[in-house]
Amino acid sequence: MSDRVTAVLTEVLDGRWAHIRQAVRERLGAEFVTVPGETGDQARERVSRLIRELPTDVGVASAFPSRYGGSDDPGGSTVAAEMLGQVDLSLMVKAGVQWGLFGGAVVALGTARHHDAYLRDILTADLMGCFAMTETGHGSDVQQLRTTCTFQDGHFVLNTPHEAARKDYIGNAARDGRMAVVFAQLITGGKSYGVHAWLVPIRDRDGNPMPGVTIGDAGAKAGLLGVDNGRLSFDHVVVPRDMLLDRYGQVAPDGTYTSSIENDTRRFFTMLGTLVRGRVTVGAAASAATRSALTIAVRYGETRRQFTSPGADREIALNDYLAHQRKLLPALARSYAYVFAQEELAATMAELFALAEPDEHRQRELESRAAGLKAAQTWHATRTIQMCREACGGAGYLAENRIAGLKADTDVFTTFEGDNTVLLQLVAKGLLTGYRDAFGSLDGWGRATFVAEQVTEMVLERTAARSLIQRLVSAVPGRDEEVAVTDRGWHLAAFEDREKHILEGAIRRLRNGAATKKDRPFDIFNEVQDHVLAAATAHIDRITLEAFVAGIERADDPQARELLSKVCDLYALTTIEADKAWFLEHGRLTPVRSKAITAVINDLLRELRPHMRTLVDAFAVPDEWLNAAILREEPARQETMAKEDEAVRATLLS
Amino acid sequence: MSDRVTAVLTEVLDGRWAHIRQAVRERLGAEFVTVPGETGDQARERVSRLIRELPTDVGVASAFPSRYGGSDDPGGSTVAAEMLGQVDLSLMVKAGVQWGLFGGAVVALGTARHHDAYLRDILTADLMGCFAMTETGHGSDVQQLRTTCTFQDGHFVLNTPHEAARKDYIGNAARDGRMAVVFAQLITGGKSYGVHAWLVPIRDRDGNPMPGVTIGDAGAKAGLLGVDNGRLSFDHVVVPRDMLLDRYGQVAPDGTYTSSIENDTRRFFTMLGTLVRGRVTVGAAASAATRSALTIAVRYGETRRQFTSPGADREIALNDYLAHQRKLLPALARSYAYVFAQEELAATMAELFALAEPDEHRQRELESRAAGLKAAQTWHATRTIQMCREACGGAGYLAENRIAGLKADTDVFTTFEGDNTVLLQLVAKGLLTGYRDAFGSLDGWGRATFVAEQVTEMVLERTAARSLIQRLVSAVPGRDEEVAVTDRGWHLAAFEDREKHILEGAIRRLRNGAATKKDRPFDIFNEVQDHVLAAATAHIDRITLEAFVAGIERADDPQARELLSKVCDLYALTTIEADKAWFLEHGRLTPVRSKAITAVINDLLRELRPHMRTLVDAFAVPDEWLNAAILREEPARQETMAKEDEAVRATLLS
Repeated sequence: MSDRVTAVLTEVLDGRWAHIRQAVRERLGAEFVTVPGETGDQARERVSRLIRELPTDVGVASAFPSRYGGSDDPGGSTVAAEMLGQVDLSLMVKAGVQWGLFGGAVVALGTARHHDAYLRDILTADLMGCFAMTETGHGSDVQQLRTTCTFQDGHFVLNTPHEAARKDYIGNAARDGRMAVVFAQLITGGKSYGVHAWLVPIRDRDGNPMPGVTIGDAGAKAGLLGVDNGRLSFDHVVVPRDMLLDRYGQVAPDGTYTSSIENDTRRFFTMLGTLVRGRVTVGAAASAATRSALTIAVRYGETRRQFTSPGADREIALNDYLAHQRKLLPALARSYAYVFAQEELAATMAELFALAEPDEHRQRELESRAAGLKAAQTWHATRTIQMCREACGGAGYLAENRIAGLKADTDVFTTFEGDNTVLLQLVAKGLLTGYRDAFGSLDGWGRATFVAEQVTEMVLERTAARSLIQRLVSAVPGRDEEVAVTDRGWHLAAFEDREKHILEGAIRRLRNGAATKKDRPFDIFNEVQDHVLAAATAHIDRITLEAFVAGIERADDPQARELLSKVCDLYALTTIEADKAWFLEHGRLTPVRSKAITAVINDLLRELRPHMRTLVDAFAVPDEWLNAAILREEPARQETMAKEDEAVRATLLS
Repeated sequence: MSDRVTAVLTEVLDGRWAHIRQAVRERLGAEFVTVPGETGDQARERVSRLIRELPTDVGVASAFPSRYGGSDDPGGSTVAAEMLGQVDLSLMVKAGVQWGLFGGAVVALGTARHHDAYLRDILTADLMGCFAMTETGHGSDVQQLRTTCTFQDGHFVLNTPHEAARKDYIGNAARDGRMAVVFAQLITGGKSYGVHAWLVPIRDRDGNPMPGVTIGDAGAKAGLLGVDNGRLSFDHVVVPRDMLLDRYGQVAPDGTYTSSIENDTRRFFTMLGTLVRGRVTVGAAASAATRSALTIAVRYGETRRQFTSPGADREIALNDYLAHQRKLLPALARSYAYVFAQEELAATMAELFALAEPDEHRQRELESRAAGLKAAQTWHATRTIQMCREACGGAGYLAENRIAGLKADTDVFTTFEGDNTVLLQLVAKGLLTGYRDAFGSLDGWGRATFVAEQVTEMVLERTAARSLIQRLVSAVPGRDEEVAVTDRGWHLAAFEDREKHILEGAIRRLRNGAATKKDRPFDIFNEVQDHVLAAATAHIDRITLEAFVAGIERADDPQARELLSKVCDLYALTTIEADKAWFLEHGRLTPVRSKAITAVINDLLRELRPHMRTLVDAFAVPDEWLNAAILREEPARQETMAKEDEAVRATLLS
């Protein structure tokens, strides 16, 4: 493949925020890149220093309002954070805590007086802060937080009632944070109004904890050594009334509570909804790190040779083995798919953010997709980076080759910003209600029976390039057996059909359960939990495919387009292959056609083999960022191997 | 379940080396257990000290001949090492390097003069050593090592011809090793005789490298921080003639080479075969670590509650969710299965070791199973520990809860002591040749066409409890549709049938390839590589099931037996479920029966739910070894949660 094809692919992948991607690539040099093998203290010190040196104009704080130094561009800020995921994930998370979670909460939940007082210092990192939501006893079930903030005598009193209510895993808490946005149950006049947020000083100028605030250190972790996660407890800490971030709920000096949103639960989820950017960012960063790992593993597999074939005069490159292709290429195809799905998600977020009047329906849909793509991309990262580690053999285990760090750092992404299983359940709930009734407690059971009774028929909403997809699907002949398994319309139809059928089956089972298990409400939902999660996965697979299909259109070079189309074939067919049993069980595939899919996948692997290097080069991760010894040794390895093949053979055969 | 049932299960799981397991549990206290969050230097210092304090009479060196302080019990030594895997994996690997690889090589490849001179000091760890086999450029393809050791002027000259031939990832090299068993191509009289091993001093008494020896440090790694992996290069180092470990090949003072095994390749694989204990140990230790992780995750899931069910007065325990059971229980069942398979493997090894006359056929079979079970167990460890990490949420990411360390430390097991994919290929090769022609280069292609032409029909050899298994299989009625999916005979027959059919298909395809692709020898094998690997996996699944079925018989308590039987059902059915598509494609399952399997699995999960705690308690991992903060906080958590449910509800609802 020519450099031109690589360039076209990069352009397509970089998408509408190419300028931000390019700026980060150009401006963040080696001094920002992860240092393998640091101690925890060294990593914290370095990242703490770098967060202040990070050029904020490359987009990391672009979600801030322009009057405070941002550019009202939340999509751009997720892209900038995503790019940081290739530089140093500790730095990315630290930036995410500071500008995304902490700053983002002040922007979204606070009002003008908070913005005026704090946003400039937050943007310059002169005021470092925490996002203190998660408690030891309550992670993903945020609505059930136990910390209380009670209004009395003209001020609030913030309190941690017991150990399980301490704020846990809080970034910036153990070392750097001076303030925290603390989430707690708001109580006034003896009545609770649900979870709200306050801006609370936790350290004085000298770095000592404020009176009544206890700060702990979460200690060593699997990864993200540069992030100072800690624990916060509050012993009847007095918080001035105006420190309540009161965009969605206000407390008057006399203690009267007011809100434009009457229902506590609905208000709570509206508040949470404004924080969707966190999930959008985490999924993106996980995928970015995955692309780094794939780049290292694919390039290593090009030059690393092992075992001689009879009749061949040299050892075989790892990438020539079918088993190696079977590991790397489907993961690579899925990584391509997520680039397109993620871009569409960020674009939708940007669009909704810019609306004068909020669109509640689309906002719920956005939250659902953000949750689903966060789960899908972070699991993809965990599996793929692990696979890349193994594909590099012992070299993959050494810190100097970077993959070990990528794995350790991204590992927590599957459970933070919402546990992936809980997030998939959220997606499923959105599907079950057909987005018509998206409010309700996150617990997932509350409305299941109600929903099951209401929903009569599912209509899937297409996401990307609706007319193109409709045209492709319509072009598929009636009988599957006559359609080539590489037919794009057939892929789209198969993904849609699977999603719809699984979902309808889940609804049917919920309805039956509701009729027969009235006295066991938990069991109604629990007994179909696996089925419901499968529906969510099928949904995410489908919107990802649609985004990929739409994305191919953006390549204006025929060779690049053909290559992308083959990669899309591989994504579609390996996704079907992984769930083959479902297609067979439900008469969607005959045994013959099912076997043919595996054969066609192996053909695709052979066809894509010569383009593996092009496909990772198109990710355009600077070598400086990859920072892997096995890549620096690439030219030497090629040379030595060639020379020594000759020399040693001469010795051995002499 | 009563304590009696737990005790019976422990007895069955502990098996014939229960005395060693018990001794290690009793004698290795908290001072030997992993310290989370150490720096690399601290970990190396601690482990280096502990390896000398480890009581060698608990079995870690029991493979040594009794006249040198061992007890001629290689099975017991793998069990002792396995137990160390629950104490501290760095200590386990360091012990494995010292007594297993280094000491084991001296025992197996050396002769009396080496034994007399070194074994006592090796056993007491006064002489620390390395096993210097792997080279940067050649990992699993050991036969192609590039280091040379040339006989001239009455001595050997050991040389590293270029950077890719340096010894890499070598345990004990970076800090503690004073000698190394170095593998290199033996050249004498201008002719090479293949890979042999020498005992080579690498450091003097003061710890300085010997002349001509360059020692490097592999630096920071993903895990195993306490193991000092390093790199060794040799610049024309003079090695006295008698330092050749010459059990299988001797060089006379005049340079004449002699060996009882004529063929170089055959001699090389015989030498390698004596080192099979390494693979047996690694698989066992990976499984032991997995049991620790499962114990932590299951116990956490018992007391950790999240989300409230409508109508319930408290939040739901994680283990009550179907999705959580779906994660933990199949992995737990597979862990049970591997305990039995591993015990049978160790027992076979012990039996063959004790034979006066070596049984070549059974030795090859042992090597194949050791390879297969090493691959299966280490991949199971990687997947399961990762899953346990996620099942504990954010807590699973903190070093204080141990799982992160178990993951990081066991990660390399999938690629060391042979890359898992290469090992599965070795298993497949054994199957293809029907064990009749087990010698040949490890490359896997050389004899494929030959083999494919020879093999006409496969006869599977049953491993454990042959008559019991024959009886169960024979009792299955002819038509599958009439047999309950929980019928043990049907499970056994289904596993056998799958293995046989996949293998026969692979042979057929190889044969066709041999006929049509004569000019592309690499492609003949490569195009069926995925098929061949599937055969190996099916084989390992089958021998694991057979071992499990035989193991159930050892429980003499009816309740324990019934519980074990259900766990075996779950292992068998989830294994079939994972490969459902194959069974459907090949007409082994109808769609109706295939769906029924999933339903029966969900029923089994519900039935096993109350026994989850019993099943992990039976692993009998001391709490001191688990060393997880979330378990130490268990009683407090239960108490707080109960109290606060009441208190906070009172506040919120007041």
